[in-house]
Amino acid sequence: MKSTGTQNKGRKPLYEEVAHRLSHMVDDGIFRSGEKVPSIRTMSNRLQVSINTVKTAYGILEDRRIIEARPQSGYYVCAKLPALPREPNPRPPLLGATEVEAGEMVERILRDVNDPARVQFGAAIPDPGLLPSEKLARILASELRRTADHGSGYAMGLGLPRLRKQIAKHIMRAGVTLATDDILITTGATEAVFLAISVLCHPGDTVVTSRPFYFNFLQMFRERGLKVLEVPSSPTQGIHLDALERALSRNRVSACLEVTNFNNPLGVCLAEEKKRALVAILKRHRVPLVEDDINGDLAFDGIRPGVCKAHDDTGTVILCSSFSKTLAPGYRVGWMAPGRFRDRVARLKMVSSPASASPTQLAIAEFLANGGYAHHLRRLCRTCAERMAAMGEMVGRTFPEGTRVTRPKGGFTLWVEMPESVDSMKLYTVLEAQGITVAPGALFSTGDSFRNYLRLNAAAFSPKTAWALKAVGDAAKELV
Amino acid sequence: MKSTGTQNKGRKPLYEEVAHRLSHMVDDGIFRSGEKVPSIRTMSNRLQVSINTVKTAYGILEDRRIIEARPQSGYYVCAKLPALPREPNPRPPLLGATEVEAGEMVERILRDVNDPARVQFGAAIPDPGLLPSEKLARILASELRRTADHGSGYAMGLGLPRLRKQIAKHIMRAGVTLATDDILITTGATEAVFLAISVLCHPGDTVVTSRPFYFNFLQMFRERGLKVLEVPSSPTQGIHLDALERALSRNRVSACLEVTNFNNPLGVCLAEEKKRALVAILKRHRVPLVEDDINGDLAFDGIRPGVCKAHDDTGTVILCSSFSKTLAPGYRVGWMAPGRFRDRVARLKMVSSPASASPTQLAIAEFLANGGYAHHLRRLCRTCAERMAAMGEMVGRTFPEGTRVTRPKGGFTLWVEMPESVDSMKLYTVLEAQGITVAPGALFSTGDSFRNYLRLNAAAFSPKTAWALKAVGDAAKELV
Repeated sequence: MKSTGTQNKGRKPLYEEVAHRLSHMVDDGIFRSGEKVPSIRTMSNRLQVSINTVKTAYGILEDRRIIEARPQSGYYVCAKLPALPREPNPRPPLLGATEVEAGEMVERILRDVNDPARVQFGAAIPDPGLLPSEKLARILASELRRTADHGSGYAMGLGLPRLRKQIAKHIMRAGVTLATDDILITTGATEAVFLAISVLCHPGDTVVTSRPFYFNFLQMFRERGLKVLEVPSSPTQGIHLDALERALSRNRVSACLEVTNFNNPLGVCLAEEKKRALVAILKRHRVPLVEDDINGDLAFDGIRPGVCKAHDDTGTVILCSSFSKTLAPGYRVGWMAPGRFRDRVARLKMVSSPASASPTQLAIAEFLANGGYAHHLRRLCRTCAERMAAMGEMVGRTFPEGTRVTRPKGGFTLWVEMPESVDSMKLYTVLEAQGITVAPGALFSTGDSFRNYLRLNAAAFSPKTAWALKAVGDAAKELV
Repeated sequence: MKSTGTQNKGRKPLYEEVAHRLSHMVDDGIFRSGEKVPSIRTMSNRLQVSINTVKTAYGILEDRRIIEARPQSGYYVCAKLPALPREPNPRPPLLGATEVEAGEMVERILRDVNDPARVQFGAAIPDPGLLPSEKLARILASELRRTADHGSGYAMGLGLPRLRKQIAKHIMRAGVTLATDDILITTGATEAVFLAISVLCHPGDTVVTSRPFYFNFLQMFRERGLKVLEVPSSPTQGIHLDALERALSRNRVSACLEVTNFNNPLGVCLAEEKKRALVAILKRHRVPLVEDDINGDLAFDGIRPGVCKAHDDTGTVILCSSFSKTLAPGYRVGWMAPGRFRDRVARLKMVSSPASASPTQLAIAEFLANGGYAHHLRRLCRTCAERMAAMGEMVGRTFPEGTRVTRPKGGFTLWVEMPESVDSMKLYTVLEAQGITVAPGALFSTGDSFRNYLRLNAAAFSPKTAWALKAVGDAAKELV
């Protein structure tokens, strides 16, 4: 494609020609949804046109949402995604708090995690292949060698001081400054949330959260004898603050529990202004916030979102997180910043599990200090972004007509709304027999609001598991 | 000392002479309390007398309780111990269940565990020098290398199957046969007991236990809003079953919690017949037993005592233990056999801390399989026996006149009764300033029954810390 004046006369500009050709290659499936396209320099060489021509062409394709730029990575084919799931009714009838019941399906889903033979679209866990497991194991071994007691001693009280220092340093990126002693190490983020909820609520009390919400929280409420008040949440905006405000003025609530960044299952990340507003509303109603920031490090654009804790001037936000989604689920290294509830949380931890394992604390501390955590996160997030886009696109192609999916900008979970006639509980059963686990929407609220929804773990989606996603779509079509 | 007929004429028999000489050396402090004396063969060589003469002499010294034989180890100088602590009144007025309150001292004692500069007579923890920490660390590193996911994956549900298999094999020595799936891995024994108590009791319920009892249980009852009914226990016989029977017939009780082997703090090991009787009484009253067997592997004579769980034909005994006292406190590998409460316990674990750390589970499993655990236990128990004897003897020499101590046959804890005027809470404060932690008796019950008692961690007693024990005695004398 020599760009000579003669050849181009009377035709559309060269950059349009380049854009058209590339667009055609995408339509043709030569470059697939989520795939990287050649860099501007490479393309300029290949097509023998100027760098500027390619730049302009890529700009046009970006405007048309055919390709997209990703920071420090290059240009990628945009996913051709189906419509967004329906917005919840922002003024739903508030039915008041609900007693919690739940079946054993949640346990089965969580236990299936241990079965390497299954395709794990059910639990929101990282693909083991994306984790720096070997490097962590080497670091762990070397830390045990160089530690005086070889990691055999208790890390009592708040947990290993060096780890708490590293966490304080790391979480500054989310706009919050914590002292080492503001932080308490837990055996995973679930323990952190459990301790927080246990300290804030007595049996019979009510917790407010946004709907849909992580199914293990539902089980937690049930086990603790708590009622739950569900406020609607949108896949693009998150929790409806007006509805929250109304819920709080009509109910006596002991705590609010919210996954603020890349929420599970909706994937929505609360805007900073909204985080500030959420904290203000809860402060006005004197309701402590348990902020689950488990996915905060998983932003696809590499920009660490803030946390509500950063806007907390009364010590009533309990920030909870872990390294289970980004480094090693099995290491069970979680943490929390319990604010003014620290001593009460520490007392409960002392009687329920007075220390978390020392060796894995040593390893995570060293990885944070010198292991290249930021570099690892960049690679992990890039892959997750690709998988999320590819999965959403394939759901669009293979699921029943009318299926809608979310567009998360971080995390692992894709929230899928299928036609109303598809019962995802039945779908679960059909797929279980085929070695595929999915999380049916019904698990994500107390009512029957999400019976035709599915949560899929995009981190488990790759060319190797594409057959399984097709099987999910096929099974769903059968159920329409 | 040639044994010729002439030399010995008219004098006492040669074996008496040998016994007398050795006895004198013990009085003289040449062989100290708890110290090993030369073997029969060595002594026979040294004194140039026959093996039979030495054997007879040692027999005489054993009868006089000057030396004692220890299986597979040899002869040791008996501890010259002060009197036993007073027996509790076996018919104390049963005051009914008590609301639980406790100060922050327990937390300070447990947190002090992390301070290597302190002499740790307070917490019942093993001396790090007695643990196979280096070997465990090597095993851990090698297990991470040879495991497919390098230990980074979740060990969901009941925990690592290989570890549960090894535990089932190991605990057979206590007379109980468990299937792999009868066992649930926990983050230490405290989590096991906490899960058991949480599943069995609602806030406001009553737990029965023997008095004195482990202070962290008191904190646990307080945190869970439970009342406690305390049944007296004797340092030689353990829990008074008659008193228990009466307590159960007059009170509504949700669970019994008991450390059955080498009880903390009394050190008493329930006789097998008594274990059987305890299970029968509780069965009759339909009260589940939470059996804490944390010290079961720490028998000084090397004979593993049984557990109540072995007599449980209704699945209502929840056996709890860990490897924190014998292998590595910081690894946080505990376990429980919850009987017919298994599914309820597993559900609570799923929402409170769905898995314990995988790397340390891998290491403990391999140590149990091929690490020489039995051999390690023999050495550990021998040292603990020596330290216990030496500590008891030194308490007799250096504490105020009238002090009494227990004679535990296993475990770490020595229970010391000082004259009534000595306030062990004051003693705690005086000693804390000197870098010595002790556990005041007042912490071991709800009432004020043990204000003049102390629990000492014998595993921390060695020539290096003898000065500290003397300091405890001196401070106690000041307070008489």
